[in-house]
Amino acid sequence: MQPSAIRTATYPAAIFAVYVAASMLFPAAVDLYYGNDDWQVFVVCALATGAVALTIAAATSGSLPRVSTQSTFLVVVVLWVTLGAVGAVPFYTASLKLDLASAVFESVSAITTTGSTVISGLDGLPPGLLLWRSLLQWIGGIGVVALGLFLLPLLKVGGFSYFRVESSDIENRPFERFISFLIALIGIYCLLTALCALGYAAAGMSNFDAVNHALTTIATGGFSTHDASFGHFEGLTVLWVGTVFMLLGALPFSILVLLFVRGRLDALQDPQIKLFLAYVTAIVLALAIERRITTGLPFDEALATTAFNFTSIITTTGFASEDYTLWGPFAVTLAFFATFLGGCSGSTSGGIKSYRFLILGSMLLNGLKLLIHPHSVQSLRYGKRIVDEEMQRSVVLFLTAFLASWVVSTLLLSLTGLDLVTSVTAALTALTNVGPGLGTIVGPAGNFVPLSDFAKWVLSATMLLGRLEILAVLVLFVPTFWRS
Amino acid sequence: MQPSAIRTATYPAAIFAVYVAASMLFPAAVDLYYGNDDWQVFVVCALATGAVALTIAAATSGSLPRVSTQSTFLVVVVLWVTLGAVGAVPFYTASLKLDLASAVFESVSAITTTGSTVISGLDGLPPGLLLWRSLLQWIGGIGVVALGLFLLPLLKVGGFSYFRVESSDIENRPFERFISFLIALIGIYCLLTALCALGYAAAGMSNFDAVNHALTTIATGGFSTHDASFGHFEGLTVLWVGTVFMLLGALPFSILVLLFVRGRLDALQDPQIKLFLAYVTAIVLALAIERRITTGLPFDEALATTAFNFTSIITTTGFASEDYTLWGPFAVTLAFFATFLGGCSGSTSGGIKSYRFLILGSMLLNGLKLLIHPHSVQSLRYGKRIVDEEMQRSVVLFLTAFLASWVVSTLLLSLTGLDLVTSVTAALTALTNVGPGLGTIVGPAGNFVPLSDFAKWVLSATMLLGRLEILAVLVLFVPTFWRS
Repeated sequence: MQPSAIRTATYPAAIFAVYVAASMLFPAAVDLYYGNDDWQVFVVCALATGAVALTIAAATSGSLPRVSTQSTFLVVVVLWVTLGAVGAVPFYTASLKLDLASAVFESVSAITTTGSTVISGLDGLPPGLLLWRSLLQWIGGIGVVALGLFLLPLLKVGGFSYFRVESSDIENRPFERFISFLIALIGIYCLLTALCALGYAAAGMSNFDAVNHALTTIATGGFSTHDASFGHFEGLTVLWVGTVFMLLGALPFSILVLLFVRGRLDALQDPQIKLFLAYVTAIVLALAIERRITTGLPFDEALATTAFNFTSIITTTGFASEDYTLWGPFAVTLAFFATFLGGCSGSTSGGIKSYRFLILGSMLLNGLKLLIHPHSVQSLRYGKRIVDEEMQRSVVLFLTAFLASWVVSTLLLSLTGLDLVTSVTAALTALTNVGPGLGTIVGPAGNFVPLSDFAKWVLSATMLLGRLEILAVLVLFVPTFWRS
Repeated sequence: MQPSAIRTATYPAAIFAVYVAASMLFPAAVDLYYGNDDWQVFVVCALATGAVALTIAAATSGSLPRVSTQSTFLVVVVLWVTLGAVGAVPFYTASLKLDLASAVFESVSAITTTGSTVISGLDGLPPGLLLWRSLLQWIGGIGVVALGLFLLPLLKVGGFSYFRVESSDIENRPFERFISFLIALIGIYCLLTALCALGYAAAGMSNFDAVNHALTTIATGGFSTHDASFGHFEGLTVLWVGTVFMLLGALPFSILVLLFVRGRLDALQDPQIKLFLAYVTAIVLALAIERRITTGLPFDEALATTAFNFTSIITTTGFASEDYTLWGPFAVTLAFFATFLGGCSGSTSGGIKSYRFLILGSMLLNGLKLLIHPHSVQSLRYGKRIVDEEMQRSVVLFLTAFLASWVVSTLLLSLTGLDLVTSVTAALTALTNVGPGLGTIVGPAGNFVPLSDFAKWVLSATMLLGRLEILAVLVLFVPTFWRS
């Protein structure tokens, strides 16, 4: 690792920080409109962080050295850490006066689209801060999509490259194709957000609530403008709108581009989409039927509330319309396991993700067949493609790193005196970027406020780790990374 | 799979059942000595099961067909299921009158050396039944050692073959070497049991207690003759005796043969032994120091009780000298994670086992290095040996199957109304053959009695699954297994 590589990593982060600083003018405008004094804070924050970012960008600009694998890893990590730091500035300085650990936690929870919050009394919060939380999640969401489609597959950390999806015509004018793809991607992200906001407004939300929740739904983020989250809203329609758009946010955006822009219906044949929709359907139906039988709840209500709250967990969004941990032990156990799942690669969702389960499942079945017939040849397929050794290794690597990170994070949390269920599920929900865990503090009816500063730092680090698919961060801790 | 293969699998199980039936005469003799009427039950059971087993053996004897991989898998599973069934007969028929689900649970818990019990009031139980429980665990223990050294490595399910340990001179007269090795193995197992009993007696146990606990210590089984387990006994010495012999039971018996019979001190250089002792030491020291600091307990007491109770979990024994779940959240979280660990391959212990962690750890580190330098060549080492692809695949296969089995077992338990912690830890403790889980029912101060019949059947199946290293059972569910 040479100093020039660090410069390579700093420059894009600084440029990105300028844009994030500029986006602080949105909450400033909203606060100004609603007559809240925080608008000044947002303007000052925008100018100050913008100036610092510009200075750093100027200092690190110039002809950049050749991009290496190491510098790309560094770009990813520095970019996300910077985003977390810049996002925290308004939380730290605005009228809310969060302490440093809480401000960083809230910001990291936003940009990783986790959605756990250390702010209680959301209903009384100035509109600018509420919008800032939603906006950060929305920015984080598109960032995650870009990360999952362009960088992580390139780094062999995981997922399917956009280049694979577009392989048929990428060799022709690659740069033009890339730019048109990127524009389509951002366009669809904005379009879905707008449609979601319209849906929420039609289902009865105020315009402000509709926009905020739309921003955090598509990002599968889960921040709400109310302490009661979706429990604040009446009726089942709003839950169904949320369910549909959370599902869309958890689909691969490369597929959405093919579907909406190129009209390619066959794109939905992606095996990871089938498995994802299969496990969502199976879990929701199983639990809705169990609740119908054990409580006698009307089936439409059982189905709507189960679909909303469990799609929210599985897509790693984290909204809740009620405290589903009161639905009985089967619901709690399902919620625990659902926290692992996640959506598709190249989406805004986190977690282990369906394509990894597909590959692990095939590896298990093939492995068992090999035990029975040791000399047979078993090839591993993903749809019509053969999954090569490299892909299999990457999935195993991720799973191992995931479990190891979960254990370490849990042990650190338990040292702060948190009980087993709280430690285990807080670490897990942070690592999978879901949002709520289980228990009175981190559960869907709780709030992360009572956690110690140390626990908040541990969870902030865990959220970042999970968001960058763990491996992209862990490589930085291997000594060979820093040798030139 | 041909009918002849089923005959191949039935014959050894029937022969083995004859020996197990004969061993029922030990508790019969003990009950006769103590004047308990159950001696008649044991004699009748011995004669009846012995007669049935002999009949089946006679019906399936004759020239056996060539041994195939399938028939070997079937031998292993049929053998363990038979052992579980035969072991249950006295529990079902004796004065205790357990129902069928409980009798099978108790027997399977014994032969898998798990140590969970559905009998409360152990202190008032007839001595014959107490000895039968201990004896079943002891038989299960040596069975597991044999399984781990001879059959599972052959089937590529896991572990290191005895043939590898002895590779230097195995080619010379292999059968004679095998027999002498087997005799040494059984000799050491008996010797360690005797030494352990002497140790316990010297530390203050009655002779009957000393023998029973020695049988279940070496087997890392964990059945006690008292409801309070080791809480029944006074002083720290008895805890240290238990700790030492649990550790010995969790070492590879192939290494113990090299060490004690051939005087090869270098055998202790096995990397899995180092890692196993390292994590036992780390966990015990960390928790003992934490307890010393937070409670002010004298360090010798903190160390002895921590060492005993946590060595008991890690070696998958399951004794408890007190309710360690009252030691605070750090202890509970450590207990949870310690349940996964296990001892060494070729020992009586269960769990994931240290060599798998070694291989997973190396795979993780190598994988990270490969991400940094994609074109470098990383070889994976176990001590001085290179771990081939087959071994790596087997470890990954095991881990995947382990996690999948854990999830399925937990979900089934939660359907019976058990809470999350109980379902999750009961399934886990059964799968790793540890014994106690967490919570009021399955925790170290609890008792599995309140579980429903369905839950007991699920746990019996889970214990068997875990004991046969999961894969040896799962292959039976792959359709190709049954095709000829």
